[in-house]
Amino acid sequence: MSDARLHAQIDFLIEIDKLKRVIRRNTLMDGSRRENDAEHSWYLGMLAMTLAEYAPPETDLARVVAMLLVHDIVEIDAGDTFIYDDSLAAGQAERERAAAERIFGLLPEDQAAPLRELWDEFEERRTPEARFAKALDRIAPMIANHRTEGGTWPLYKVTQAQVMEKVKIIEEGAPELGAYAARLVEQSVRQGHLAPS
Amino acid sequence: MSDARLHAQIDFLIEIDKLKRVIRRNTLMDGSRRENDAEHSWYLGMLAMTLAEYAPPETDLARVVAMLLVHDIVEIDAGDTFIYDDSLAAGQAERERAAAERIFGLLPEDQAAPLRELWDEFEERRTPEARFAKALDRIAPMIANHRTEGGTWPLYKVTQAQVMEKVKIIEEGAPELGAYAARLVEQSVRQGHLAPS
Repeated sequence: MSDARLHAQIDFLIEIDKLKRVIRRNTLMDGSRRENDAEHSWYLGMLAMTLAEYAPPETDLARVVAMLLVHDIVEIDAGDTFIYDDSLAAGQAERERAAAERIFGLLPEDQAAPLRELWDEFEERRTPEARFAKALDRIAPMIANHRTEGGTWPLYKVTQAQVMEKVKIIEEGAPELGAYAARLVEQSVRQGHLAPS
Repeated sequence: MSDARLHAQIDFLIEIDKLKRVIRRNTLMDGSRRENDAEHSWYLGMLAMTLAEYAPPETDLARVVAMLLVHDIVEIDAGDTFIYDDSLAAGQAERERAAAERIFGLLPEDQAAPLRELWDEFEERRTPEARFAKALDRIAPMIANHRTEGGTWPLYKVTQAQVMEKVKIIEEGAPELGAYAARLVEQSVRQGHLAPS
């Protein structure tokens, strides 16, 4: 172990502590406060472990978990983008790429590269692992919204059609979870917690 | 997939969302607020990925990460126990076992058992994976305290000798990280942020 190597690793870890202060739109399941990116990332790791059987056969679960722990770190610089706000999406990809360069770049090069690859893979959804991970990232706020009388849906005037676009992403990563999400959406519309299209 | 099975899994996931509301003694790295168990668990997962090279050879990193994501879930019922408060430790083991039964027991039996085993393994530190995971759990607040002028140490009148007991646990799981932690402790004493013994 070289001192410089360990110090670079600790610098990276101190930097990513900031993810605990990046606040998302959706709330905790009890509606008490908005969620932060760090606890959200933990939660997705637990979703992966709990719902692993709905991933396609041969999915590398450890890689899914690693991807989910890492997937939001770029938001330390780039901020959280609400998935239903298209105006924020402009420029976001560029900001996130710059963030990935800077933050993963704090690590020794042999560690920065694989973390950066994990993040790229997640963003591009080009593997079963990435599609499953993204499906979990999309289903988690649906479960929370369904539990909290619509949660962010009525608050930000999101419609059923918009949510069903996200359900498609879930279906692509985990068909059975996609079907379950579609049922949550139907139920929320029936209960008046999501505006029908 | 049976509906009952998926519903049990979702019930478990809704229940463990409560980990985001279990508050620990130590603060974020910027000292702005106390940390919760969910974001702490994410952070330890990232420590495992970043510091993996200091684990003993052949350590199963995926198992370490899984263990760390799960390790504090029992605190939903049993509460956080400050590691330097011996009065709270009494009865804690029993409360945590009951919590493990109840919370992991929300899952289908074939999933409850392996999660319970992961948690037992962590608590008992009987494998290299568990010893490494516990080392990370002990080093994280030391890094935070070192960054925040002693953090919880002066606040709860913790002494160097008490912290060095925890450094031993780090050494047992990851000798190089133990040596690093010992240096942090020495530095903190020199800077007047930790009471010498």
